[in-house]
Amino acid sequence: MKNRQSQYDIMDEIQERWSPRAFSSESISDEDVFALIEAASFAPSCFNEQPWKFIIIKEPLELQQMQSTLTESNQQWANKAPILILILANKIFRENGKDNYWHMFDAGTAWGYLSLEAQNRGLITHAMGGFSRDEASKLFALSDDYSILTVVAVGKYGNINDLTNDLKLREEPQSRKNIEQLIIK
Amino acid sequence: MKNRQSQYDIMDEIQERWSPRAFSSESISDEDVFALIEAASFAPSCFNEQPWKFIIIKEPLELQQMQSTLTESNQQWANKAPILILILANKIFRENGKDNYWHMFDAGTAWGYLSLEAQNRGLITHAMGGFSRDEASKLFALSDDYSILTVVAVGKYGNINDLTNDLKLREEPQSRKNIEQLIIK
Repeated sequence: MKNRQSQYDIMDEIQERWSPRAFSSESISDEDVFALIEAASFAPSCFNEQPWKFIIIKEPLELQQMQSTLTESNQQWANKAPILILILANKIFRENGKDNYWHMFDAGTAWGYLSLEAQNRGLITHAMGGFSRDEASKLFALSDDYSILTVVAVGKYGNINDLTNDLKLREEPQSRKNIEQLIIK
Repeated sequence: MKNRQSQYDIMDEIQERWSPRAFSSESISDEDVFALIEAASFAPSCFNEQPWKFIIIKEPLELQQMQSTLTESNQQWANKAPILILILANKIFRENGKDNYWHMFDAGTAWGYLSLEAQNRGLITHAMGGFSRDEASKLFALSDDYSILTVVAVGKYGNINDLTNDLKLREEPQSRKNIEQLIIK
């Protein structure tokens, strides 16, 4: 795959996943959606807290409202996605009410599992940080106990020619650092 | 698998992964270690920052020093693991020096990929929050730019009878919440 060549024989789902923008507006099945959430739920977490929560956004009005929280540059392409999944994490351990230092880390692991299960099912995902967390919080009347992390566009691959010229040029996997750069000695 | 039955047909690596304690002390190959890091490196991240860093701990002295930062209950079983991987994340965006709100979340995604590639290779992993982050920071003279997240025991499955009776009873996958509990409506 252009820009990203694995040196090692790693899992297909990991090698082949990337974050496209050319979504089809075709809907995806509830079976697929629930399988993604189940995959996420199988992630490990500190004290098995499972701090992750998901908001599945697919009803037209709610979708439109959530889209309006996205940056303009994300709206350009993400508005085609048939579903958005907002990922949150509870800041507090249920057991003792203490701060959960790992809540974001653990929710990231769950998102990792979700993204690979999507790949396994022939779906594409693109996680966005570019949206108003304040507006999303108001939209869903979320408690302050949650950190709002990312909103993920989920769907099927569409037609690259539906993208603007700018985005068409960026429609490829992004490169990665060499693993030597990731290892501290 | 006891305690954890999937309702949906999700990837084998996700279904079958859990966090055992009965490590074999048998070493694992460099090929395996680097493949795990490469799998982690393929995770998506905000602005493709790739904030994750890894310290591979396998030399006897370093391993002993890192083990000494673990809680006693973790030392009981984790001291057998041939390798520990300390996972860090850079708090700061390279590009503009600003705080990276997603650094822990993104490092969690990378850990998710690492854990599944280990499963794919027949290796076991067990991530621990129970260690002194201060001591680990001193041991590796880490800059304050990093959040220290978890230390992961990596290896092959050993003999359950090497565990204490207490731990033997806990040597099974932990249960998960129903996915209905994870979805906010």
